[in-house]
Amino acid sequence: MIEIALLGFGTVGRGTYEIIEKRAEEIKRVLNDELKVSKVLVRNKGKYKGQGDIFTDRYDDILNDDNISLVCEMTGDLENSYRYINEALKAKKHVVTSNKAVVSENLSYFTALADENEVNFLYEASVGGSIPIITPLTAQSVINRIYRIRGILNGTSNFILSKMYNENLSYDEVLREAQALGYAEADPYADVEGIDALRKLKILSSIAFSKDIENSEILSEGISSILPVDIEVFKEKGFKIKLVAESFLNEDKYALLVEPVLVKSEDPLYFIEGSNNIVEIFGDNYSSLSFIGEGAGKLPTGNAVVIDIIDALLSNNLKLKFDNLKIKCASKFQGSYYVRTKEKIDESLLAESFERDGFVISRTKMVDRGELKKELRKFRDEDCFIARFEGEDLV
Amino acid sequence: MIEIALLGFGTVGRGTYEIIEKRAEEIKRVLNDELKVSKVLVRNKGKYKGQGDIFTDRYDDILNDDNISLVCEMTGDLENSYRYINEALKAKKHVVTSNKAVVSENLSYFTALADENEVNFLYEASVGGSIPIITPLTAQSVINRIYRIRGILNGTSNFILSKMYNENLSYDEVLREAQALGYAEADPYADVEGIDALRKLKILSSIAFSKDIENSEILSEGISSILPVDIEVFKEKGFKIKLVAESFLNEDKYALLVEPVLVKSEDPLYFIEGSNNIVEIFGDNYSSLSFIGEGAGKLPTGNAVVIDIIDALLSNNLKLKFDNLKIKCASKFQGSYYVRTKEKIDESLLAESFERDGFVISRTKMVDRGELKKELRKFRDEDCFIARFEGEDLV
Repeated sequence: MIEIALLGFGTVGRGTYEIIEKRAEEIKRVLNDELKVSKVLVRNKGKYKGQGDIFTDRYDDILNDDNISLVCEMTGDLENSYRYINEALKAKKHVVTSNKAVVSENLSYFTALADENEVNFLYEASVGGSIPIITPLTAQSVINRIYRIRGILNGTSNFILSKMYNENLSYDEVLREAQALGYAEADPYADVEGIDALRKLKILSSIAFSKDIENSEILSEGISSILPVDIEVFKEKGFKIKLVAESFLNEDKYALLVEPVLVKSEDPLYFIEGSNNIVEIFGDNYSSLSFIGEGAGKLPTGNAVVIDIIDALLSNNLKLKFDNLKIKCASKFQGSYYVRTKEKIDESLLAESFERDGFVISRTKMVDRGELKKELRKFRDEDCFIARFEGEDLV
Repeated sequence: MIEIALLGFGTVGRGTYEIIEKRAEEIKRVLNDELKVSKVLVRNKGKYKGQGDIFTDRYDDILNDDNISLVCEMTGDLENSYRYINEALKAKKHVVTSNKAVVSENLSYFTALADENEVNFLYEASVGGSIPIITPLTAQSVINRIYRIRGILNGTSNFILSKMYNENLSYDEVLREAQALGYAEADPYADVEGIDALRKLKILSSIAFSKDIENSEILSEGISSILPVDIEVFKEKGFKIKLVAESFLNEDKYALLVEPVLVKSEDPLYFIEGSNNIVEIFGDNYSSLSFIGEGAGKLPTGNAVVIDIIDALLSNNLKLKFDNLKIKCASKFQGSYYVRTKEKIDESLLAESFERDGFVISRTKMVDRGELKKELRKFRDEDCFIARFEGEDLV
């Protein structure tokens, strides 16, 4: 029997447990052994009284249990997850995690630590929910020069933008509904301001570019200041608005950014609706590969976790190696932007502008993104909304 | 040093060789050893004079070379490939192949033979060109009940249909152009009559349903009788036409079919143009996962082969297990069809019909596909074209 522990029994933890139970036979056949969840770490053990004696609130019970060969971290807990993973790897237990925050901050450290302790560290569920992307990207980046990644990586913001667009609702109305449905958290900051997408982009780009990327190297912009007037203009011009995470590698320079982007119907991103995610990777052996699926949820994310559990136990994975190539972050990024402000922006940036409902709607020339952001400091954040026109970017 | 042999040095063989050469450093790092192509089997050795002494026309040179631990079969040769793979596995060499014909006929046999000889048998490049689909599907099918697969699996026919649609050309004109460009073979039969897609669907469905599927269980229909008048009607009604490979599992019955299908712009298949492929899988842990990429070509297919080579050498793969579940092929399949004939079809099948350019264009009610095919025996094959309306199917 193979014993494992789950850390956390929220949405993802329950989904993981459920899949392990319902597919016990099939899992046993590939592992050649029975898989058993023998401990589950929870905050409040009392809540699970009468549901078996697998629940514990002491991590040491798991860490010191030599029968447990794998720890599956799904706490969403930013403070403790680092310690949990760090200690499990040092105790020579495999680690699987769905926690993008802790992975994005510690990917190269955990990878090296797992190597050192001859165990596996897998994190498929940290990006794209149900979508198998980490495993294929890791393989693709060995035999390809991946020079671009683009995706919709945050389901909450995509749900909000889709619903505003399709039902002519305001940001606040949709956010409240998303919160009521459990699609958005009580504090939506990380989702709507691009922080969650930034973390995922950082993970993907670190793998693809074989390089430890710093948070400070990623430009980002959220969607919380969007107004119905913006959506109205986008519709008239045939655009949809998406929060896009994108990275480029051009010769020896890379650029990473998360920001609202305007796409037309020729673009595959145009059709990614609701809480779905897409990841596109561009390599020198093909034009692109695209992966589409549900970006979150109990069973979709649990599905990714359980595949990692199997792959970790069978050592069925390519070890990620960081080259730390001599590439560096581009200091400038150019684009053509939609800008909605209270007053006109500087003439030197403008391609065209018009008034609508008391706002000034502008389309900029191809401008340096830093210059544009500097110009916008004139206005209050909540009075501006910017979105890049896709297909006109240049690093 | 790890020595491998390539069988065949056509498009895929050259692509594979090129990628192994250009990514030698990166491959060495994941294998912890140098990868060397030490022999290449070709029909005419003389053609490669002066290009090194790795070329041979005797398979025994490879089979009897104990230093060669992996054989990569890319001959496209239907007669000999079975023997090559069979003998290599028995000689305890790993086998990687891009040959869908031989895989589709022998998947369970080769899988069992590889197991018996404790080597790996991988065939990612046999379906979907560059798209990583066999590896994720194998994993997904362990922890999901996959109940539907749908895809555009043949790039040649998709290229022809896209070009007829976009440029108002006839089937023959486009076929000749595709042949001149190397997108279609001199004998296009397998591509345009759905045979190639059928083979690929058989491979995917065998994995997903954990079942040896027979060719006779797959209904199929090609595109060669399509006329510009059909495309004209599809355009007017907002449809695009795609050669779709699809399988369903419903309770204990499955159905597999390859046929022209009419899709609207809400459908992701609508946007798969030219020689691109898409595969969608539907499982009980998520609604669907979609994979899109180039379906053929030197580097795209070579890319899939090289990943298999790495995964085979590292034993980095889940062993496929055939449950041979107690499921059986549905004897009937229902759908609503577009039918273009010279004369009216039987009234009992009709929902509506009209005349155009001397043809009768009909839309059938939801009918039994077998009944419809029986009715069409009245006409010459080249005078009929049928296409299913997507979204109205029922097993």
